[in-house]
Amino acid sequence: MDKAILKCIKCKSQYLDLSQGTCSACGGILLVQYAPEALRDGQNRLLHQREIKGISSFEPVLPDIKKDNWVTLQECNTPYIEGKHVREELGIHSLWMKDETRNPTGSFKDRAIALCVSAALELGVKRVVVASSGNGAASSAAYGARAGIPVTVAVPRGTPAGKVIHAQTCRGSICRIPGKFDKSYEYAKEMAKEPGTMNLTTTFLSPLAVEGYKTMAYEIYMQAGNMPDYVFIPVGAGPVLYGIYKGFEELCMTGRLKTIPRLAAVQSEQCAPIVRAWRTGGKTVGWENPGGIASAIADPLLGYEDNGDLTVKAIKGSGGLGLTVSDEEILAAGKLLAGKEGIFVEPSSAAALAGVMKAKAENLIDSSHDIAVLLTGSGLKDPGKYEERGHK
Amino acid sequence: MDKAILKCIKCKSQYLDLSQGTCSACGGILLVQYAPEALRDGQNRLLHQREIKGISSFEPVLPDIKKDNWVTLQECNTPYIEGKHVREELGIHSLWMKDETRNPTGSFKDRAIALCVSAALELGVKRVVVASSGNGAASSAAYGARAGIPVTVAVPRGTPAGKVIHAQTCRGSICRIPGKFDKSYEYAKEMAKEPGTMNLTTTFLSPLAVEGYKTMAYEIYMQAGNMPDYVFIPVGAGPVLYGIYKGFEELCMTGRLKTIPRLAAVQSEQCAPIVRAWRTGGKTVGWENPGGIASAIADPLLGYEDNGDLTVKAIKGSGGLGLTVSDEEILAAGKLLAGKEGIFVEPSSAAALAGVMKAKAENLIDSSHDIAVLLTGSGLKDPGKYEERGHK
Repeated sequence: MDKAILKCIKCKSQYLDLSQGTCSACGGILLVQYAPEALRDGQNRLLHQREIKGISSFEPVLPDIKKDNWVTLQECNTPYIEGKHVREELGIHSLWMKDETRNPTGSFKDRAIALCVSAALELGVKRVVVASSGNGAASSAAYGARAGIPVTVAVPRGTPAGKVIHAQTCRGSICRIPGKFDKSYEYAKEMAKEPGTMNLTTTFLSPLAVEGYKTMAYEIYMQAGNMPDYVFIPVGAGPVLYGIYKGFEELCMTGRLKTIPRLAAVQSEQCAPIVRAWRTGGKTVGWENPGGIASAIADPLLGYEDNGDLTVKAIKGSGGLGLTVSDEEILAAGKLLAGKEGIFVEPSSAAALAGVMKAKAENLIDSSHDIAVLLTGSGLKDPGKYEERGHK
Repeated sequence: MDKAILKCIKCKSQYLDLSQGTCSACGGILLVQYAPEALRDGQNRLLHQREIKGISSFEPVLPDIKKDNWVTLQECNTPYIEGKHVREELGIHSLWMKDETRNPTGSFKDRAIALCVSAALELGVKRVVVASSGNGAASSAAYGARAGIPVTVAVPRGTPAGKVIHAQTCRGSICRIPGKFDKSYEYAKEMAKEPGTMNLTTTFLSPLAVEGYKTMAYEIYMQAGNMPDYVFIPVGAGPVLYGIYKGFEELCMTGRLKTIPRLAAVQSEQCAPIVRAWRTGGKTVGWENPGGIASAIADPLLGYEDNGDLTVKAIKGSGGLGLTVSDEEILAAGKLLAGKEGIFVEPSSAAALAGVMKAKAENLIDSSHDIAVLLTGSGLKDPGKYEERGHK
């Protein structure tokens, strides 16, 4: 779509250059904005397409990228599947699962990375770097390989082996960084200072990542018979939640939707800076000792707490809520999902369903609500977690 | 589709009961046959559908199953992606990848298992059993879970951990059987004698498995701009190759296709009973000491050699060929695919691309040929194989 600009959420500075990661003036987070008429026209074009086939199908509601520069492995258009058996088990009215495990590298990250790597080609970038807890690493290496752009990934030591091997086999250069995710984040940020380098880290460091994620909101809008009352989302730094919020917001701006579904952010009780900020009503404070089995969402936000504040803003903007779950609740939810619906997800995804279960138990949702749950990544990315606890 | 019958390839006995696994009269392999007019009508209905969304979309060309009995996780309709970079590397005219890793449990097996489990519901089966080298186990457990039918899987010891954990988490009862795949095969066959039990083993023990696999031929027909000259297929017992053959054959029968693309069967040089039989022109002889890293196709066929003979018949019927590849060639192909196209597959899938490379090197195909390659399973199912060899 033409006339996309990047706008700083803090000082309101504007940029036309898509390679801009954060605001040069104040360091603030950038988001993409479109002219209202362009957005209306773009949505019309999107919704009249015969078929969604990869991120480039969303071109009408995304920043302009030349036809030849789109890099795609036919990500997106993931199934929206009814969870009949789990619904019955939990005693709720309706439960739908957005199965992001079906993306090319097995996670939702492919939406953001496909768009970012396409932009990297458009911009003539020579190298991309990414800090990742694993899924972003595999995705970046895969799309970088397809685009012919060298990829360096910074992952925390302790990242699940399958994710690292996936990235390595796709010829990603792996840097294992001691410490938690924030250290990898800093490392990638430093590397990205090299000219010709683009940082794909899918926190809010890349405004295009949020654009990639918003396509999930558009798909739910296109796929759902009834729009969900709540969407449960596992949250690290929160760009996924923010992206979904932004997609629904864009559909509200053009009058296609009346309200944004309530967004429920689910974090591990061992790393919950965003839920804590949502609960206290104050600013986000980094989490000192992140832990737990949900490695893909164990983001302490130390040094980039503004990410948490923006995510909290989207939760509140949707009238949503924040929830924490324990490792035991996560594993129980993952097993319930696999054992009742046949969908095998990694612990960080199971956290979202654990959040539904907790919300139901605590009467935060009631049995009349229509619930959607975002299943972010495949269980094959980290199968050992289901074994280590002595699962029968 | 109405009027499907099961017909023995040996003694020509016919059966109307879909629960029949092999011929009661002579033990021969059963295949599904349709009345020509029903097939023509069915294809018309299939090809006029707006969207392929799961195995039930193929109902027009499959045996009748009641609407409520279809069990689906939106398998099928996998991408058919151009392999531009690998094509250039190999110096061939066109290369397309049928990316079966995108199925719900990460492999092509979901096509067969979704159909078989739907049939199991239709038939009121109480338990299903399956012998599997891993992918079939995960798939059966997942679809059994979704259908609410208990699943027992027999896997050889040494099956990749991720596949076993996947099946376990979906509440499959796991029996680890000492010895190679043939022992698991015998075990499942024995268990299936229990009344109310159905054997899903996707060798030729289940005629419906072939029907599930034939949907790949229909999809290639629908997706390909130009039909491929060759389709390269990794082969264990060969029902996948036979299924693809049968799909193309059905399209020829109704005049939609002029010829069946040549089918190239690729096996590991450490377990190649079918390629050996194709080369010698004699009967299939079981393979005594199967080995190699391609565990998903390491089927020795000991005791069910007739499976190999039927597969050889399909290779010959298509004017195709047989090839063996080494572990080193398999890993090199897997790394080339991941490193150039961003698609990460398990070694047994990489074998198919290794076959293309070998066929090109040996001038069995030439640079003018249009090649399709079947990527059967995700690299996340067995990532360790890419690490153990000290991949950088």
